[in-house]
Amino acid sequence: MPLKPALLLAALTLPLPAMAQMSPAQVAKLRDAALKDEIAWDITEGLTTEIGPRLAGTDDEARARTWAVAKLKALGFSNVRVEPYQMPVWVRGEEKASIIAPFPQQLQLAALGNSGATSAEGLEAEVVYFPTLADLEAAPAARVAGKIAFVSHAMHAAQDGSSYGPFGQVRRAGPAIASRKGAAAILIRSIGTDYHRNAHTGVTTFPEGVAPIPAAALSLPDAEQLERVLERGKPVRVKLLLTPRQIGTRESGNVIAEVPGRDPKAGVVLIGGHLDSWDQGTGAIDDASGVAITAAAAKRIMAAGRPRRTIRVVWFGAEEVGGFGGTAYAKAHAGERHALAAESDFGADRVWKFDTALPASAAAIADRLQTALAPLGITRGNAVAGDGTDIAPTLALGVAAVDLTQDGTRYFDYHHTPDDTLDKIDRAQLQQNVAAWTAMLAVVADAPEEIGAVPRPAAGH
Amino acid sequence: MPLKPALLLAALTLPLPAMAQMSPAQVAKLRDAALKDEIAWDITEGLTTEIGPRLAGTDDEARARTWAVAKLKALGFSNVRVEPYQMPVWVRGEEKASIIAPFPQQLQLAALGNSGATSAEGLEAEVVYFPTLADLEAAPAARVAGKIAFVSHAMHAAQDGSSYGPFGQVRRAGPAIASRKGAAAILIRSIGTDYHRNAHTGVTTFPEGVAPIPAAALSLPDAEQLERVLERGKPVRVKLLLTPRQIGTRESGNVIAEVPGRDPKAGVVLIGGHLDSWDQGTGAIDDASGVAITAAAAKRIMAAGRPRRTIRVVWFGAEEVGGFGGTAYAKAHAGERHALAAESDFGADRVWKFDTALPASAAAIADRLQTALAPLGITRGNAVAGDGTDIAPTLALGVAAVDLTQDGTRYFDYHHTPDDTLDKIDRAQLQQNVAAWTAMLAVVADAPEEIGAVPRPAAGH
Repeated sequence: MPLKPALLLAALTLPLPAMAQMSPAQVAKLRDAALKDEIAWDITEGLTTEIGPRLAGTDDEARARTWAVAKLKALGFSNVRVEPYQMPVWVRGEEKASIIAPFPQQLQLAALGNSGATSAEGLEAEVVYFPTLADLEAAPAARVAGKIAFVSHAMHAAQDGSSYGPFGQVRRAGPAIASRKGAAAILIRSIGTDYHRNAHTGVTTFPEGVAPIPAAALSLPDAEQLERVLERGKPVRVKLLLTPRQIGTRESGNVIAEVPGRDPKAGVVLIGGHLDSWDQGTGAIDDASGVAITAAAAKRIMAAGRPRRTIRVVWFGAEEVGGFGGTAYAKAHAGERHALAAESDFGADRVWKFDTALPASAAAIADRLQTALAPLGITRGNAVAGDGTDIAPTLALGVAAVDLTQDGTRYFDYHHTPDDTLDKIDRAQLQQNVAAWTAMLAVVADAPEEIGAVPRPAAGH
Repeated sequence: MPLKPALLLAALTLPLPAMAQMSPAQVAKLRDAALKDEIAWDITEGLTTEIGPRLAGTDDEARARTWAVAKLKALGFSNVRVEPYQMPVWVRGEEKASIIAPFPQQLQLAALGNSGATSAEGLEAEVVYFPTLADLEAAPAARVAGKIAFVSHAMHAAQDGSSYGPFGQVRRAGPAIASRKGAAAILIRSIGTDYHRNAHTGVTTFPEGVAPIPAAALSLPDAEQLERVLERGKPVRVKLLLTPRQIGTRESGNVIAEVPGRDPKAGVVLIGGHLDSWDQGTGAIDDASGVAITAAAAKRIMAAGRPRRTIRVVWFGAEEVGGFGGTAYAKAHAGERHALAAESDFGADRVWKFDTALPASAAAIADRLQTALAPLGITRGNAVAGDGTDIAPTLALGVAAVDLTQDGTRYFDYHHTPDDTLDKIDRAQLQQNVAAWTAMLAVVADAPEEIGAVPRPAAGH
């Protein structure tokens, strides 16, 4: 059986072939040692304790960058640096809401990122209810104008997080739709799966020409309470006070650290998560754990000897509020060869699946990943890899990818709420993540195959 | 074998003996029908939705009384009325806290009932940490004076709620101890068992002559965060703003409804829960479910025919803030004969155990209860019954008691937090409660035995 052309090509271009690549036994040893990792916990605990919340573009995020540089230097990484960029900054203000009639009581809510403000006295209006975003879209403007639109949805937990895409549209798109119809404000049922009185914030977008209106998420118990009050059939009036502000352009930045490789021509392996967090919690699962897992794995590879490819760990800034860090990185490094990119930004629960997007010439890497990851309970998926807001602009240039998919069953219980705190991190599952990333890097960074471009459409989320 | 004197006495005093008492089959039929009860859900849903939070002595609690009278009349009870009394009223104000140094960040907290206030600008002081209440008690005043005392504890969930007694002392007694030592303020780890950023309020007491100081509970994630920050060993400064107020004497009241009995001399069976709630949640498990369960069971007995004894359902006012309703009831009704009292104030999860406190002459009632309750999965305990803040002053007069003990494993996840909302009620478990109470009332209200006094020491909690 003749060699396939792609494999033939790969064979012809191998630098230091057999000598460089780690054996499966070496990969397994590194992987299993990582199950006792303490580095990722140390980073997660330190960042969430010593910095806490770190909203993009604020002094808190700047303190986080200083902390990150010190930590990454202390871990022994090379070329530790901040790459700054400018971005528009929105900050939360006061936020209060109450049902005024027929049954007076307070409601718990959180303004959405980019929400407009009420006056300092607040606004009071009748509530008009839409069970789904489609109902709001279909409503005539006359039904909405001057009212507080209230939009619900049917999000439920999903292991792969797939419910966030469609139901998240209520938050991402709902406020602009309501604004176009003349709504005074919009309340949404939090994009979440828990029943605690902690509202889920997150960014919304008002396109050019669409006036930002006050936009907030009710906690799920409050959203259901408001639904029950509305079901009584009497007009429901709500008073709303939201005083967030756009404070103009500020500096943010990506923190970068490297494990230098032996072969500069083999391309960079880009990994990371995001350093910024929402302002309500300490960003433990979103995304202190992601920066911690990726840095801990890179540190373990570094300690095992110089890999073929440079591993670049990027702790992206300003992900939550619009992916400014990922965009800035792709722009700054567009001329550089990236072999592969992978991102950890879905909490700290176990990796249960992996997917790849590799050129045909490097298809064997996926088989070796399967061998290396299976002992951690990780199965091979059938999707095309490429998940992650921060790496999306880089992947869009045609870079190969691996997704190590975490169990997101409880992720949206805490996501973007005050409840995203250190106690939500399960240490054993965090260690399993580090083991998975260590194994993945051991396979990918040392792979003798060339990892060329993977054509792909622009990322869609 | 001769009749024992007690049984002989009982036999001589039976009015309408065999004819009046429900057969075990009749009791079982009523019990099992109650497993499909909708009345308790209707009350719980209605009270939490149409009134919401109802802090004792406020307009909210007054609206709850009006709602309660209408509901109990609509259910067909007799002698529905409010028995008012006066009480001192404390109301929550603003509450904010942040760590100022070394790691600036906000903390989530809730003032304790009867907390003193800071100035309108707040106060800033160094934190001094005590792992237990005993450590605070043992500390010299010089260590505490001018500081913010922070007291932790090791409460864990217990099915029978027994951890609330000892660990609750941190809340009940801690603030006065800190005040006596000259503390500027006190923060406690919430008396709770969850990990959500919802602080557990609850009443504290400053005895005559002890100055009320600002006193608040941190949510558990915040308490552990503060512990981690303290562990770094640097001085920790916190800024605290609490502006609650004592607003003087106001009216509260008990709402009373009756199922008249056939035999006025047989004594009243007193049951109920409390109508007031803390202000942070809608008081679903504390204690809308308790008033709902007891009223639903009484309604079911009423529908089955006139019982021997009058069943009096009391929806007590002002339980949370010092048991004013229970005290007022005992005072107003001290001259009346009570056969037995029982209270439902531990959530809405299933009854798993029952205990009794009965005179020897009525001991057979406990055996019949065992038969009636066992099919619901309820075992007979070996404790002396008498649980409940509201019935305690009545029990102290020597009244017999039954405790239907609910599963409290998750009760302190929600107790006194914003999270005490309708979604925490499991409808099937609520129905099991109604079935247990219906069976208990069927046995007790119709019992042919006399139920005389039970000597007991004054209730201790």
